[in-house]
Amino acid sequence: MATDAWVNETLYPEWGQRFLIRRELARVQSAFQDIMVFESFTHGRIMLLDGVVQITEADEFVYQEMLAHVPLLAHGSCRNVLIIGAGDGGVLRRVLQHRGVQRAVMVEIDGEVIRLAKEFMPGIAGDAWHDSRAEVLVGDGIDYVKRAGDATFDAVIVDSTDPIGVGEVLFTDDFYANAARILTAGGLIVNQCGVPFMQADELRETSARRAKFFPFVAAYVAAVPTYVGGFMTLGFAAKQPGLDAVPATTIGARAHAAGIAGSTQYWTPEIHAAAFHLPPYIAKQLLPGRRAAVR
Amino acid sequence: MATDAWVNETLYPEWGQRFLIRRELARVQSAFQDIMVFESFTHGRIMLLDGVVQITEADEFVYQEMLAHVPLLAHGSCRNVLIIGAGDGGVLRRVLQHRGVQRAVMVEIDGEVIRLAKEFMPGIAGDAWHDSRAEVLVGDGIDYVKRAGDATFDAVIVDSTDPIGVGEVLFTDDFYANAARILTAGGLIVNQCGVPFMQADELRETSARRAKFFPFVAAYVAAVPTYVGGFMTLGFAAKQPGLDAVPATTIGARAHAAGIAGSTQYWTPEIHAAAFHLPPYIAKQLLPGRRAAVR
Repeated sequence: MATDAWVNETLYPEWGQRFLIRRELARVQSAFQDIMVFESFTHGRIMLLDGVVQITEADEFVYQEMLAHVPLLAHGSCRNVLIIGAGDGGVLRRVLQHRGVQRAVMVEIDGEVIRLAKEFMPGIAGDAWHDSRAEVLVGDGIDYVKRAGDATFDAVIVDSTDPIGVGEVLFTDDFYANAARILTAGGLIVNQCGVPFMQADELRETSARRAKFFPFVAAYVAAVPTYVGGFMTLGFAAKQPGLDAVPATTIGARAHAAGIAGSTQYWTPEIHAAAFHLPPYIAKQLLPGRRAAVR
Repeated sequence: MATDAWVNETLYPEWGQRFLIRRELARVQSAFQDIMVFESFTHGRIMLLDGVVQITEADEFVYQEMLAHVPLLAHGSCRNVLIIGAGDGGVLRRVLQHRGVQRAVMVEIDGEVIRLAKEFMPGIAGDAWHDSRAEVLVGDGIDYVKRAGDATFDAVIVDSTDPIGVGEVLFTDDFYANAARILTAGGLIVNQCGVPFMQADELRETSARRAKFFPFVAAYVAAVPTYVGGFMTLGFAAKQPGLDAVPATTIGARAHAAGIAGSTQYWTPEIHAAAFHLPPYIAKQLLPGRRAAVR
């Protein structure tokens, strides 16, 4: 199916990115969404869900490293980790890189995303699927957090789509209330909050919602090439204070002990610490008076 | 001229961004380049040169703040500043915000860029054009640095296009040699080095070139929404050591003294200091062994 057609991302109706398609690999209408996998000329293979870029082989390291390593090293002794979404397996792989992790449960609602990622983008998860500490479930993340026992996980990582379509329920009061309940006393949750230059509401509204259930709410940034529009933000909410302000030297020591030092292409201890310092145009979307504001 | 046409940025042949045009405001073939100004739905007014986005009203603050405030505050006592390019006047405006600046010379090769920016994007430069400390010249930056006297400027800021077309000469040995000569003993130069995720060569080659004429070469990053592809890098070369590692507290004190504290939407003292910590995928493009590498 060689083609010289372009695919236009449809996330924003009046601005967006486009990719020249080298070869379409799959186009599937699952029970939940329209899934497209194609090979680009510039970014390796790319997966779109409902017309929105979810992952590319070339830049996935930025998002995955920041979504996995930051919460685990900010916490410092995560043993049990829950991942919601992230059907490509890239977050699972990074979580399992941490020696101290004993169990990583991944709950992805759409089995077709997992199947297509395994078939067409196998390098993203690597051997993570077969790690004895991994428990991969196809199911509803909302339902999973409702049924999970109190204080079961040290970290919850939410790698969802934007709060439209299938991902919407992962941004509700009900979800955050249960997430807080199933976290241990020192636990924390991170979730993607979009690109505030274009989607300021997403950070503002979900920060306010997390604040209902977590005493310490912050956010950190990552410059993901294909999540266009400047920094994307990752929401960060904790049951103990100070996790957003761990010094780079401490983070570096933890990374060394965890076995991830030197394995990254974007994350470093300094970038970890720096990522919590938000530009004013982003900080103003967080709750006034919270320490997540510019310090 | 209402239209519902899209403009596709042509910087990369196989990937790029596109904007829905609300209204085309100007399309001029100058002696140097094709200039287009249009109103978008998402980013205010936008100027393209030879099909490449140069500036948008909505996100110009990111690039301009980082290009102007970082060198001036890293240095700490700039009095005489040379700006090359930056015909929209946004860098000039930020430079003149600094109380200690006594003279800011701006040399833009294309008078049409200045004219169109004044007519259609007047908010970007504000009153900078009429500041008694400003000297705005339409001419060749290469030629200007060749004729300028030794040790005339404390900082040189190069806001050029990518090293294609009219901007190419601003990336040559000849230019950097003269830039070093006209800088004072503690002086420094910054220049845009592209988006390394897409244009790694640009940072690598220009860093090597700057190293021939400056003993201290580094780079720093900014997440500019419309310079798509993750972090852009700004090259940084100095005649004295340590300017890339001034602590945030010192930078904050200097910003306060300079009169710029609280005026920014992206730049903060913490972001200033953090910006020199490069992700490994970017750091590897700098010279091995230089302190600009990941610390």
